[in-house]
This record gives sequence, structure tokens and C-alpha cells, in this order.
Amino acid sequence: MFAKETYMQRRALLKKKLGSGVLLFLGNDECGLNYEDNTFRYRQDSTFLYYFGLSCAGLSAIIDIDDDKEIIFGDELSIDAIVWMGSQPTLHEKCERVGIKEMMPSAEIASYLHKCVQKGKAIHYLPPYRPEHKLKLMDWLGIPPARQDGSIPFIRAVIAQRSYKSEEEIVEIEKACDVTADMHITAMKVLRPEMYEYEVVAEMNRVAEANNCELSFATIATINGQTLHNHYHGNLVKPGDLFLIDAGAEVEMGYAGDMSSTIPADKKFTQRQREVYEIQNAMHLESVKALRPGIPYMDVYELSARVMVDGMKALGLMKGNAEDAVREGAHALFYPHGLGHMMGLDVHDMENLGELWVGYNGQPKSTQFGRKSQRLAIPLEPGFVHTVEPGIYFIPELIDMWKAEKKFTDFINYDKVETYKDFGGIRNEEDYLITETGARRLGKKIPLTPEEVEALR
Amino acid sequence: MFAKETYMQRRALLKKKLGSGVLLFLGNDECGLNYEDNTFRYRQDSTFLYYFGLSCAGLSAIIDIDDDKEIIFGDELSIDAIVWMGSQPTLHEKCERVGIKEMMPSAEIASYLHKCVQKGKAIHYLPPYRPEHKLKLMDWLGIPPARQDGSIPFIRAVIAQRSYKSEEEIVEIEKACDVTADMHITAMKVLRPEMYEYEVVAEMNRVAEANNCELSFATIATINGQTLHNHYHGNLVKPGDLFLIDAGAEVEMGYAGDMSSTIPADKKFTQRQREVYEIQNAMHLESVKALRPGIPYMDVYELSARVMVDGMKALGLMKGNAEDAVREGAHALFYPHGLGHMMGLDVHDMENLGELWVGYNGQPKSTQFGRKSQRLAIPLEPGFVHTVEPGIYFIPELIDMWKAEKKFTDFINYDKVETYKDFGGIRNEEDYLITETGARRLGKKIPLTPEEVEALR
Repeated sequence: MFAKETYMQRRALLKKKLGSGVLLFLGNDECGLNYEDNTFRYRQDSTFLYYFGLSCAGLSAIIDIDDDKEIIFGDELSIDAIVWMGSQPTLHEKCERVGIKEMMPSAEIASYLHKCVQKGKAIHYLPPYRPEHKLKLMDWLGIPPARQDGSIPFIRAVIAQRSYKSEEEIVEIEKACDVTADMHITAMKVLRPEMYEYEVVAEMNRVAEANNCELSFATIATINGQTLHNHYHGNLVKPGDLFLIDAGAEVEMGYAGDMSSTIPADKKFTQRQREVYEIQNAMHLESVKALRPGIPYMDVYELSARVMVDGMKALGLMKGNAEDAVREGAHALFYPHGLGHMMGLDVHDMENLGELWVGYNGQPKSTQFGRKSQRLAIPLEPGFVHTVEPGIYFIPELIDMWKAEKKFTDFINYDKVETYKDFGGIRNEEDYLITETGARRLGKKIPLTPEEVEALR
Repeated sequence: MFAKETYMQRRALLKKKLGSGVLLFLGNDECGLNYEDNTFRYRQDSTFLYYFGLSCAGLSAIIDIDDDKEIIFGDELSIDAIVWMGSQPTLHEKCERVGIKEMMPSAEIASYLHKCVQKGKAIHYLPPYRPEHKLKLMDWLGIPPARQDGSIPFIRAVIAQRSYKSEEEIVEIEKACDVTADMHITAMKVLRPEMYEYEVVAEMNRVAEANNCELSFATIATINGQTLHNHYHGNLVKPGDLFLIDAGAEVEMGYAGDMSSTIPADKKFTQRQREVYEIQNAMHLESVKALRPGIPYMDVYELSARVMVDGMKALGLMKGNAEDAVREGAHALFYPHGLGHMMGLDVHDMENLGELWVGYNGQPKSTQFGRKSQRLAIPLEPGFVHTVEPGIYFIPELIDMWKAEKKFTDFINYDKVETYKDFGGIRNEEDYLITETGARRLGKKIPLTPEEVEALR
């Protein structure tokens, strides 16, 4: 964890920002796979980690701004538990390490909150994303799950802090990015036709674990890159396939890396693969060039989409005016997701607090297919960390649907597109920090151009 | 999944066993680590898997014995979801594969159950172990979490089936055991002083993943084997350390393997390590020799404890009559856990249904330290699959506590024990099937004797 001053300053800033009320922080509990004691790896809630630094189950915290109190609710281990779990710092000692002086048994939180309500204090909590949070909010505050919306002032205050990464946070993110890069480089070296996808995953995850990292999200490693939400790893890789990887490491402090790469199963890209890869590469490089404080990330997304349309026109897959095509949303047939998202303690940073607040500052979002998947639209600011990950996909189900609906026939050459339905998908992804003057890539470089990729094959 | 007849027969047997009432099966949902969409690997509830074979989130099922209905409640994917997730069998098709003809939207389960209650039918459900189960039981049946005890007839009927593994189940368990053995053998080959524990874990997990397996539980791989609940992997391995591993693979069908081994960090055990290892080995071999239908597993546990006491007496660590020592519980200073547990779709099979029913047939358990941790006490029967995992540990906190309390001074030579407080712990573990005439080890053999272990170092 960071020095206690870090957490004390973060809490002081939060209190100042909100001014009054009682802030309730729900830590995460263990979650059993198939019975209570066979648990998934433990992951603390990121906002809890940010303000309290303690990564252990069974904790809640209250910042009572009105009474100027900071309390962690939790229970000391019994002597029996110490016999089984070994001696370790007491909860009291752990709290001291993050500058918390007051501790109460977990059983007392409901009555503490009840007294706050009686005194007419406002109770703020963040939107629950785990069923255990919902049970607690119901139990402690009597709010049924359907009405547990979270406090907008609390949400906005947290986002106003967590969006700007400090130097010590950047160090941690960069460690995660370095390991993430090594995972991708390893995959580029080991991938061969006649391997199963899961064999590649095994080599990548080994790199994460051998560096004492967890995965920041479930690895995508697939010959079906056109299927965007795809965690199946059971396919045999065949000559001629494109292999798409989206994977990242999480360091012990909880910070994430997130990169993507696309590799030919063979030693070289085919001519057809390379032509589309070059377009995706141009989208990526042009987007990176545009990164600077003040530019709305939605503008960079649109730039990347225009670069794609120009490239697809040159291949005969699209036609018409690129700007019109992107405004109307025709590009989304091939590029149905966004250009990137915030990254930090969460790989999609603060996604549990709501994309509308994190990426749109509360302004309404487009409902257009493709554009609506852009998670980050606001002007970039120094201290933001985000991904750059344009993609090009040929999704048979989507092509069939749009073609049947005669959608965007002014912009899309469906006859030509039909001949690419077996192509798959391409995505590359890097992580950037916005600086005072521009942007800086975080972590070791992964191969990005076709030449760089082929050099490792 | 198995052939549809397997699931149909299992359900038919369950209906016959219970005779009447409505059985509610809660499938597991996805669980988000740090926001809703960043999920842990998906794991279906094992009882749901056993009777319905479908490993996907968002499902519930009802067997209405009174009306002779079998219904799966769930929702078909939207066209949007198919675009993102690729084309796949419909839920309707999946249900057909497991012999289920009736499907209803998930939103209708509450009203279906309500009608059953109105008609005076008994609703049976199993004890919830995930918070999402608790929310559903509250929402659908109005039962608050504190009173969601589960139906004993339902629990007993499920145990009466799942305790006896069929031939096709044994095949799956044995696949899991083979991969599990390879994980251990790999660790034995790669472990060297100056490695971090997590580097060994990385090599072991790579073996699981390269065989398309998940982990059946969080790997223990530690130089502090005396700490029984220990998933920390951050220590550097030093010359002279003992390294204790407890790890297992889970195959795609959900069946688990579970083995333990103990390896010297150096190429050979030291004399002191070998002496204790030989005792643990004798406990293991004597236990395996005793396995046969009809013998209460509690008797085998007590046999293993007596073998230990005899060995510890020879080393001067214990004294007195072995039988008396074990009856009174003095052995538990060094052997505080049980000899083994059922294994199948869960690594501790059916633990969510309650140890009292799974391992004790509803009979009261001992409250004695050590003996109370024996999860399986009943007579063994053909078709049972269980682990054999005696252990010997020197737990400084426990030694200090007992010594201060002057506990069992007739049986324990505390002065000598003091000199072993830096020893660590030893456990070896194999998985056995009880046959008509005895028992059969499942999966590839892992090195067990000191000579076998040293041969791989």
C-alpha cells in the first residue's frame, strides 16, 4: 500500500469536496464458486482501496463529515483463525497503516447508520454492483435493491479524484503495463498453427503469475476476433487464421494494464490480412497523434472512424464521403465499439460509478449504434490514463442484418463485404497517460506495425 | 455434457426419492470483481450441473413433482447480444440437449412459485451460499436471509445420488486427477531455492490451463505449510525450506482433482525433514491400505492419527499410549485437520449441502479439536470418491497456546517440540474411488515416498 499520508490526503480532499453528510463505503466480501469456502481470488472494491488501502474481506467504512469521524468497521481474527491462518497484523495495526484511528465491530454499523438517520444526516453510498452490497444496503438502511441508486454528489466527488492519476499511481499502472506487454510479446512468440487457444492463454497467464500479478480481466485470445465478447479458448488455431488477444495484468496494489494485439497464425500476414491491418494501424497511430489535453476523446474516436472509412474505401468495402459516413454511423458495421476507456484501479476505471459520469460528465450520450459504445467522450486532461484501441471486424451476423435492412447502402459495398465474411477481426491497444503537453505511452512497447509483429513470429 | 439420458435418469430418480413437492434449483450468476461486467470465471452451481448439465448464467429450474413438470427458467439472447457474442445454440436447443422440454422466461418464476404456494405445494430449495441466491429467495419466496435454511429432504435426496459416482463421472474425475498430478510433478521438477512461491504457482497453473482446465480451488504453494489456510505466494524459497503444495484441476465438465505434496527446496530432504516425512508417509500408506467398503472413514482417520503418534513417540516428540492420545485428541497438536473429504463436482463435494449430512449422515459430530475437522465419518461405500491427506505440522501459535495451557503434558514432550517450531508442515494427498472390493487410486501417481520425490529434484 501507499504511505498513510496518501490515504489521509485523499479522504481530506473528498470531505472538503462534499462538505457534509455521511459517506458509506462498502468493502467487498469473499465470493464462493460452488460453496462458501471455495472462493474466487479476493478483490477489494476499488473505491475502498483508493481511500482506505486495505485489501481484505469483511470491511466497511464510514466518513462522517458532519462529526469529522473516519471509522473502519470490521472484526479482529479469533485465536482459532490465527492458528489456521498464521500470525498477521491485527486489523487495528492495518488501520493505523492507512491513518485510520477509529475502529468498530462490524455488527455495529447498522446502529451507527441508524443514529445518523435519526439525527437527520444525509447518508451517501455508491451504486452497488455485487449482490452482497445489495443485501447490506437493504439490511442496514432498509433500501430495497430496486431503489439502491447511489448518491450522485458522492459519485461525482469520487470521479473528480480518481480520474487524475498521481505520480505514485502512474508508477503502479506502468508496472502493470510492463507485465501486460510481456504477456502479449510471449503470445506473439509462441503462437503456432495446430495449437489450441487455451495453450496460448496458458503461456500468457504464466507470465502474469510469474510476475506476482493477477489478470485485470478475463483474457480474450481467439481465432474469432470478430466476436467481441468472447472468452472461449477451445478452438484449434489453423494456418491462415488471425489471432486476436485482449489481456492485461493487475499488480498487487490493484492497478491494471490492458492491451490488445492481433497476430497471424502463420509467420506472415496474408496480403488481405495486411491490407486491413494497415488500416487499423493507421487508425491507431492517428489517434495517438491526436492525444493532448483539451481534445474531447469523442473527437479522437471520430477521427479514428474517418481514417477507417478512408481505408475501407480504398479497399472497395465502403464508398461516399467519410465524414458523412461517420456522422451517420455507417462505420460501425466494421467498428462497433469505442476507441477507449479510462484505466486505473479498474481496467474500465470507475465503471461501477456509471459511464455517464465518468466519460460524459453527466451529459446525454448518443444512442447511435457504435458511437454509443464510446465510453469516454469528455476533453482529455493531464493525469487521465486511458486506452487507445480501435478495431476492424467482419461480423457475419451484423453484416447479414444490415444488408437485409438495406442499411447505409450509400456507404457500404455489401457485395465486396460478403467476400470478407470469413476474415475475423483486428484490434490493437495501448495505454496512455495525458501529460501537460501531449501524451505518453505507459509500459513497454508491444509490436504494432505488421513488420514489428512479423519480426517476432 | 453427458448424454441427455443421464440427466433425465438423475431427475427421475430424484423425483421418485422425494415423491412430492416442488424442487427449486438456483443456478449461479456471473459475479463482478470490481464492477458488474468484469466477471470472475463463470462457475455453475454443482447440483444444477448434476441435474441439468447447463453451465451458463441466468438460469433457474423447477421440478414440480406434483404436476410432473420440469421447467428451466431463462431468457434467449437478443440479436444485439448475438452480434457481440457470436452465434450459439439457443437456450431452447441447450435445454433439449439435457432432455428439458419446457422453458419459461426468467421473469415468470416468482409467479410460478407463488401459484405453487397458493395450491399448498411444498417448495424445497437447497441452502444458499451466494448472496445472489439469498436475494432471489427473498424476492421470489419472501423468505429473509436469516431464515433460508434449505429443505432437509431435498438435501438428503441430492446427497443420496451425488455420493455415488457413476462410471462416466469417474472418467471425468480421473481426467482432472491426471492433470492435477502433472501440476504437482511439474512443481517438483521446477522448484529451486531463490524462486518466489508465485513462480512455482505460475508453472503449475500453466499445466492446468494448457490442458483446458480451471483450478478446482485456489492453489496452496508455500514454504509455510504449517499455516493451513494460506494462499499467499509472495515468499522467496530458501535452501532448507520445505515446500507444501495443495492444488487441483477442474475439467470442463466441472469435476475436480485435489492432491498435495511436500518437497524439499533442496535436492534432498534433510535428516530431520525425512524423519517426519517418513511418519506422514506411513500415515498415508496405512490409511490407503485400510480403504474398503464398510469401514467408517472416522476409523481410518483414527488409524492415521495412531500411526502418527507412534512415529512421533519414536522421535521423542510424543509419549504415552497412542490409542489414549488419539482418543483424548493430543495428536491434533500436529494433525489438526481431517484425513479427507468427498470429491466430485466440488472439490469438497456437496459442502454447500452441509457436512453433517454429507459426511455424518445427520449424526452429531465430535466437538474435539482436530477430530471435529474430519469432514467424512460414515462407512465408505462403493462409488464414493474421496481424498486421503494426513498431515504433520508444527504450528508455533498452537504449540505456544497448548504449552501455556499445559495441555496433554502426558502425551506431548514440549521441550522437544520447541526445537521443531521452525519445521513447517508436511501433507501428501491422493484421490481414491471405493470399489466393491477395496479402493482404486484415481489419476496418475505422484511421487509419495521420499525416494520418489528426490528422484524428481
